[in-house]
Amino acid sequence: MKLHPMWQDYPDLAEQLTTTLELMENVVKLKNKKVEAAVLAMIHAGGKLLRPAYQLLFSQFGPDQDEKKATSLAASIEMLHTATLIHDDIVDESELRRGLPTIRSTFGNDTAVYAGDYLFICCFKLLSDYATSLRSLQLNSRSMEKILDGELGQMDDRYKLDQTVDEYLENISGKTAELFALSCSVGAFESGNSERFAKKAGTIGLNIGIAFQIMDDLLDYEANTETLGKPVLEDVRQGVYSLPLIYALNQAPQQLRPYLEKKKEMTDDDTLHVQQLVHQLGGVAYAQQLATKYTEQALKDIRKLPDNYFGTKEKLERLTSQILTRKS
Amino acid sequence: MKLHPMWQDYPDLAEQLTTTLELMENVVKLKNKKVEAAVLAMIHAGGKLLRPAYQLLFSQFGPDQDEKKATSLAASIEMLHTATLIHDDIVDESELRRGLPTIRSTFGNDTAVYAGDYLFICCFKLLSDYATSLRSLQLNSRSMEKILDGELGQMDDRYKLDQTVDEYLENISGKTAELFALSCSVGAFESGNSERFAKKAGTIGLNIGIAFQIMDDLLDYEANTETLGKPVLEDVRQGVYSLPLIYALNQAPQQLRPYLEKKKEMTDDDTLHVQQLVHQLGGVAYAQQLATKYTEQALKDIRKLPDNYFGTKEKLERLTSQILTRKS
Repeated sequence: MKLHPMWQDYPDLAEQLTTTLELMENVVKLKNKKVEAAVLAMIHAGGKLLRPAYQLLFSQFGPDQDEKKATSLAASIEMLHTATLIHDDIVDESELRRGLPTIRSTFGNDTAVYAGDYLFICCFKLLSDYATSLRSLQLNSRSMEKILDGELGQMDDRYKLDQTVDEYLENISGKTAELFALSCSVGAFESGNSERFAKKAGTIGLNIGIAFQIMDDLLDYEANTETLGKPVLEDVRQGVYSLPLIYALNQAPQQLRPYLEKKKEMTDDDTLHVQQLVHQLGGVAYAQQLATKYTEQALKDIRKLPDNYFGTKEKLERLTSQILTRKS
Repeated sequence: MKLHPMWQDYPDLAEQLTTTLELMENVVKLKNKKVEAAVLAMIHAGGKLLRPAYQLLFSQFGPDQDEKKATSLAASIEMLHTATLIHDDIVDESELRRGLPTIRSTFGNDTAVYAGDYLFICCFKLLSDYATSLRSLQLNSRSMEKILDGELGQMDDRYKLDQTVDEYLENISGKTAELFALSCSVGAFESGNSERFAKKAGTIGLNIGIAFQIMDDLLDYEANTETLGKPVLEDVRQGVYSLPLIYALNQAPQQLRPYLEKKKEMTDDDTLHVQQLVHQLGGVAYAQQLATKYTEQALKDIRKLPDNYFGTKEKLERLTSQILTRKS
């Protein structure tokens, strides 16, 4: 059970995250041992566990400090995240995830469909076993509803050349940010905070999630084939356009359209040109600016949180600064 | 909104099932209007609604008679069933379902994955909004866990020539019967019955579900290509062996193996031979006998249920006899 090295600076949290991983491991019990092993390998392959980490941190603000409950709910949110990854890999036809062959590439789409479903259910099982109120399950299903509405909406937007920045922000709010928001709000709510405080926690999570996804999308424009380990702008070939490109397209559509209209037929040279054009047209600088704006907003709201025995506020500030200014 | 004609004999139930369908319709709200329309079409394409019907009937035994709650929970169970159908169609590469093109054949596997996920979530949303206790969500997630464990297990059993009748019964208990059991137990439990009574209801549902699946599997051996509208024993080609064949294989493996070992290469003549052999070796008669056994057990337990104002016991007996002695 190895944790991402970033948690070395947070020893208490590292301990809780290790417990979270163990709990996830204990929940996965399948008659089909090959699939069980693949799911466990995926759980252990070293995702960053950011969502459970935020959930655990926000659970420190409440009067109800129950270690078993907090880590179980943290496990449930990471289960949910893992389920969406398994299904995303089917949709994106991905071969690798966290350096391992994806479940769909090893066992086929059929197994991956049910394996993802199974982890969805494990999430709800943990939630219904450990949550104190039905309210958390309502929050959870509403979040998941937004996420899937977003995913299905995004599929309809593929190869759409006139997307706006607002549409992009709405898409990533659904796709990524919603799960960060859920982690923070459920952590706050289930530890006995008011629904009002939980909502505030959710807003912080949403801003962190938006900044996180913009940073992630920026990577594609800062990488080359060697550093990335796969062809650059593979998403663009598949019609998924992110913020830097959307901004550049709004600036000079006529320069980019000829490349993008080739869709899946774009050559490696084409994607390289697109990458350069996006830089020249200010798409990268703009996206960086927007990520900073959302990061700053999150940090501002974090600084307004109450002080507590665990120094949670300071940890949240440090963690958020750290993940949102990463350069790799 | 058209209901299956079988409900004409149950006017009160027909009214509730119409409400159930409307509730399902109201829950499905997607930005992607094409996918929304396809999901709604599937909901309206005239599934029998047996699971919500049993749930509604068992909810009549409790002291808490809340129409809105009962129909909402009935909608949640049919949502769950519909979600599994959408994902099953991906796994089975099905082109048609209820006479309509499947979501995967119209929009592709990618959309079908998320559309099924979305309906799973709609189920949990309805449940967490209308259930009175977390216990029902625990029952629900435990059932779904069994169902998916069963589905994944079954994939591992494809083309397995030495399956036992017990293994088959375990598989269909997971695949089909568990959802009937859940319908009955949640209906009973959420209307304020004891957990003991809910468990009894679940056992009745389980036996009904087992008999129902055996009857369904028998259809393949009673049909020909014209009545079925598709090649007979398509499942056998894909390695999924059901009770009549499993029994026949146990009787005379050497007669059947040469055909089955061709797997997907089985010709129409081969499947016809297999069909005839299964009849001759007593597989059809045996399966019929076993279906009768489970039906009788369910009816026996139904007759022991308490009488009530709604005459629910008699309705349950009539409905169960009707669906488990169908000949088409």
